[in-house]
Amino acid sequence: MIAVLKAGVSETQKKNLINWIKGQGVDVHISEGQFQTVIGLIGDTSRIDPDLLSGLDIIESVTRISEPFKCANRRFHPADTIVEIGEGENKVKIGGGNFAMIAGPCSVESESQITDIAKAVKASGATLLRGGAFKPRTSPYDFQGMGADGLELLRKARKATGLPIVTEIMSEKHLDLFEDVDLIQVGARNMQNFELLKTLGRTRKPILLKRGLSSTIKEWLMSAEYIMAGGNENIILCERGIRSYDTYTRNVLDLSAIPVVKELSHLPIIVDPSHATGKSRLVPSMSLAAVAAGADGLIIEVHNDPEHALCDGAQSLTPAQFDEVAKKVKALKEIV
Amino acid sequence: MIAVLKAGVSETQKKNLINWIKGQGVDVHISEGQFQTVIGLIGDTSRIDPDLLSGLDIIESVTRISEPFKCANRRFHPADTIVEIGEGENKVKIGGGNFAMIAGPCSVESESQITDIAKAVKASGATLLRGGAFKPRTSPYDFQGMGADGLELLRKARKATGLPIVTEIMSEKHLDLFEDVDLIQVGARNMQNFELLKTLGRTRKPILLKRGLSSTIKEWLMSAEYIMAGGNENIILCERGIRSYDTYTRNVLDLSAIPVVKELSHLPIIVDPSHATGKSRLVPSMSLAAVAAGADGLIIEVHNDPEHALCDGAQSLTPAQFDEVAKKVKALKEIV
Amino acid sequence: MIAVLKAGVSETQKKNLINWIKGQGVDVHISEGQFQTVIGLIGDTSRIDPDLLSGLDIIESVTRISEPFKCANRRFHPADTIVEIGEGENKVKIGGGNFAMIAGPCSVESESQITDIAKAVKASGATLLRGGAFKPRTSPYDFQGMGADGLELLRKARKATGLPIVTEIMSEKHLDLFEDVDLIQVGARNMQNFELLKTLGRTRKPILLKRGLSSTIKEWLMSAEYIMAGGNENIILCERGIRSYDTYTRNVLDLSAIPVVKELSHLPIIVDPSHATGKSRLVPSMSLAAVAAGADGLIIEVHNDPEHALCDGAQSLTPAQFDEVAKKVKALKEIV
Amino acid sequence: MIAVLKAGVSETQKKNLINWIKGQGVDVHISEGQFQTVIGLIGDTSRIDPDLLSGLDIIESVTRISEPFKCANRRFHPADTIVEIGEGENKVKIGGGNFAMIAGPCSVESESQITDIAKAVKASGATLLRGGAFKPRTSPYDFQGMGADGLELLRKARKATGLPIVTEIMSEKHLDLFEDVDLIQVGARNMQNFELLKTLGRTRKPILLKRGLSSTIKEWLMSAEYIMAGGNENIILCERGIRSYDTYTRNVLDLSAIPVVKELSHLPIIVDPSHATGKSRLVPSMSLAAVAAGADGLIIEVHNDPEHALCDGAQSLTPAQFDEVAKKVKALKEIV
Repeated sequence: MIAVLKAGVSETQKKNLINWIKGQGVDVHISEGQFQTVIGLIGDTSRIDPDLLSGLDIIESVTRISEPFKCANRRFHPADTIVEIGEGENKVKIGGGNFAMIAGPCSVESESQITDIAKAVKASGATLLRGGAFKPRTSPYDFQGMGADGLELLRKARKATGLPIVTEIMSEKHLDLFEDVDLIQVGARNMQNFELLKTLGRTRKPILLKRGLSSTIKEWLMSAEYIMAGGNENIILCERGIRSYDTYTRNVLDLSAIPVVKELSHLPIIVDPSHATGKSRLVPSMSLAAVAAGADGLIIEVHNDPEHALCDGAQSLTPAQFDEVAKKVKALKEIV
Repeated sequence: MIAVLKAGVSETQKKNLINWIKGQGVDVHISEGQFQTVIGLIGDTSRIDPDLLSGLDIIESVTRISEPFKCANRRFHPADTIVEIGEGENKVKIGGGNFAMIAGPCSVESESQITDIAKAVKASGATLLRGGAFKPRTSPYDFQGMGADGLELLRKARKATGLPIVTEIMSEKHLDLFEDVDLIQVGARNMQNFELLKTLGRTRKPILLKRGLSSTIKEWLMSAEYIMAGGNENIILCERGIRSYDTYTRNVLDLSAIPVVKELSHLPIIVDPSHATGKSRLVPSMSLAAVAAGADGLIIEVHNDPEHALCDGAQSLTPAQFDEVAKKVKALKEIV
Repeated sequence: MIAVLKAGVSETQKKNLINWIKGQGVDVHISEGQFQTVIGLIGDTSRIDPDLLSGLDIIESVTRISEPFKCANRRFHPADTIVEIGEGENKVKIGGGNFAMIAGPCSVESESQITDIAKAVKASGATLLRGGAFKPRTSPYDFQGMGADGLELLRKARKATGLPIVTEIMSEKHLDLFEDVDLIQVGARNMQNFELLKTLGRTRKPILLKRGLSSTIKEWLMSAEYIMAGGNENIILCERGIRSYDTYTRNVLDLSAIPVVKELSHLPIIVDPSHATGKSRLVPSMSLAAVAAGADGLIIEVHNDPEHALCDGAQSLTPAQFDEVAKKVKALKEIV
Repeated sequence: MIAVLKAGVSETQKKNLINWIKGQGVDVHISEGQFQTVIGLIGDTSRIDPDLLSGLDIIESVTRISEPFKCANRRFHPADTIVEIGEGENKVKIGGGNFAMIAGPCSVESESQITDIAKAVKASGATLLRGGAFKPRTSPYDFQGMGADGLELLRKARKATGLPIVTEIMSEKHLDLFEDVDLIQVGARNMQNFELLKTLGRTRKPILLKRGLSSTIKEWLMSAEYIMAGGNENIILCERGIRSYDTYTRNVLDLSAIPVVKELSHLPIIVDPSHATGKSRLVPSMSLAAVAAGADGLIIEVHNDPEHALCDGAQSLTPAQFDEVAKKVKALKEIV
């Protein structure tokens, strides 16, 4: 970490600051310039809060040199992580060249609904089944999901098709209910629900960590670090669009996050074009773009009757539309 | 709610849509224009998801007319809400002309630290004491707060000064620990941790609900609605800056949120200039601006030794600086 | 356009508003709801400013139904526009299935530099040559480009290779100098320099209109409309990233803008991955993603010696790197 | 400037980089850490583009230490700048404790309109008259202002009241028409129209430089630097709201920009609450907040008949409302 002092800082102030830094177990390297003093902090600076330093009256600016994440950092773990999901012959790998196609409805609604969709998307090449049982909704008056009953229906659909299941957790208190879920999703709104992340870090379940609505890529990796610091290294990241000032699409899908994450981290990254755009007619082009950008997988909403979906139907494809997207993705994968 | 259909929609598509809307228990009023059909949705449209509608291929745009929040809505509750905090002679009111001055350190560190600060800020006119026991930190390696021990120290400081205490909750699982806390804070990162909001809605504790990092004012009010829908109407909103592209201050303090919230809702709103700017030297001017804009209170970080604070010291005032701000705020309050 | 009145508006206020709207030559259709009155504005509402209406004390919300752009609107011009650039055997088409590969250095620096690069990128399949002569720089002390001399060197490179040339205009006063330029670029910072747009609308030169730093897609199309309203329909749009809160990349490349623009407008749209990301190592993946998303072309910075470029070298590819990207793009084009 | 090299950079790459930096006339100070090399750039680094450096493959990060603006920098010019506007007995000062109250309509519409408003706002204490003659409008079909005729009417209103006049310039070509204007405004959309800024730098006219829609504070100061580098030091900055994701107000008024600008620069800064919020009912509270935050003035839209204004009427106060705001501002000024 490098701290630049303001012009005119007194020797006493300088000495106090240096003593405080050393008191944190960090060494310093001082270089006096014509107008300013630059202090290099050497050693384990992860315990020093750059915001604290940069707010001090005597500090002009602070730059972090080494990334504050360790477990998620490609520098200390050069090889791609490959996450294994599910068991036996239905086991699926994601990352390191293994591509995952996740599909299913926004919400689980009934046994026939989820099982029919599961069969349809499997026939089109999906390798995992998604479906919401607990739903984060902006309004308390909106449909909140079927809860534990929805999880049960997902298990039935898994039994019928062999597809491992992916579904969102919204509370630490629900962890027991998720023991049998193959890939546990942490939604965008909970990306910095640190108590939930710590709890998941104590399990060894594969986690799908969605990017927060307005989180930087480094904050996102720090949230992965929260889980990994607990010993759980089975993390898959999911880009799902970030908030912007343009209202035509729900969010702006940040596809450059794919090569950036691959540069900074060894974790796999997949893309959710359905939530990112909020419009099913934009899903096919954004799916192909994500694959071309190097994504390790896609998670796509599919509904057998979009106009009657209880939630988010607008961003869902029909099974036939999904089949077409899956075919194009497969063709594209072969040349990328 | 008003839905505008695209040009060229077939009669069958139109009929299907109208039947679906009616199936949700909502009536429709259709007006055919030269190029387009406009459908007015009449009745309780809070169950209709505008995102779902606007994503349908046959829909051009959707506008919500009545706000989706009810309990928090000034239209149905014209008088200002006044929240009462604490008990007996130390009881404090916020809202409806009652101004609250909340002060204290970012983190509770020791009995002498929190008690000394509590005495100092009380002498300067503070009416509540803040202090973090559970701390949300971007990095798992940063100081996470003293936890339950910190709550105990806050109670000691309350006993020593009579000031009601304010501190942040980070998990539903901790609710028992907070039974004795006078005002429970929900932090920006948990503004849409809906399970936590529901849990707090089942209590009758006063809640300080901070605005999410990038939440709209309406999303913020919907989060208040989550708590209120459970029967707990003791909500105070707190503007603490929103994320922007400028990196000079930590966030952009959105002071126009004050008159806007007062227009849309009857709930009190206070301002946190310390977290918003991240720089203590900007706190005095932003405190005065918040008061001039009509805030119902301020929550300001004060530390007895900012350069040695374990966290966020950069945004903390010394007791002497706080005393000066408090005096100016008092003078300003008299003329606003 | 639809205006929703607030509850409690008086009959007089309502009548005044309706009379004012009719005075603008626009008809009204009134529908009285249980709590609110909704006014539909019928006819040519492009002269009514929705911001004006929505700011009135008696108005709750305003929704524009028909897009305020006419010339650029696909509704009134369903077929894709094809823009023709250059003359004779070197003529290039963009749009309607015609893909353009534009390449060249950020700044023109010398005859050998621009001519060498032109030859190299032509050999790799580039169909137009880009190069900056007038440069928009944040600082007045940064290199501002070679100006008219740079234009002369571009002409020499065109003569040597036959590639039509693309370069940025920064002032109406320079229009005479650009008479011989094949495709005139309007930069992001000038997207709402309306006097410049009007001036270009009076020519019949092909224009490459970059998206403003924080402009919505509709504002961007309105800027195209400024040029087209003057009679010049030869517009190509260029997505080059939008401003966000994440500082790792210079901007966030918004690839969903491609299908959205194609839905709203008939104009061709190309992508600039070099300026969007600011890092040459992200250019290959973002180029492929743009093609997969349906872009009508790419504009890529190429420099023969990136570490010595006077400006923006960091985002430039070497000719060898460009050759590799061009080959992959070609392979991808064949299957998309 | 400080550049941090990536781990694993070769000695040759390091030497090449250092030679290139020295070739720009800048000295270097190298410090080798355990994992990384840090290069300090010493001397006039304003010619080095940090974006170029940070994009190089061998560079991890770049930090600018000294601000790239010189003329606008408080470090080199500690005393507040006071800008003088107008002549003789009507001369007005802004900055260094001199507060300006600027008021008038969005657009000049007729002699009686502008003169009546001028008289009214003068009676309420306004010290300058604003009014648009050339109007920047998002749509080419919206009213574009009266142009030169509007300037003539402003001169008449000045003659009738003695108030110096403020109006926006939209093109270098119009400079002759503005010779007689007391304070020339550069609008948000032209903040980075660098040719216009250079042209104004060659005059000695006072300039009101509005902040760009999404510009950082430092970019804004760099635009002031463009004008000042030409020798014109009569700059007043104007905060007018920045773009955000919340659509309730037109923009987010960034009042922390006031103390930040005063820290970084010696130039006066005023606030435009009318354009920032887009709603006249929010203007009074935001005016008071701006004054409390330390603004050197306000620019407020006033119209004698808001519901009939040709543009932006929604954000205009009536003269009676303005009178009330002016009284409160005056009372507040006395205690701040």
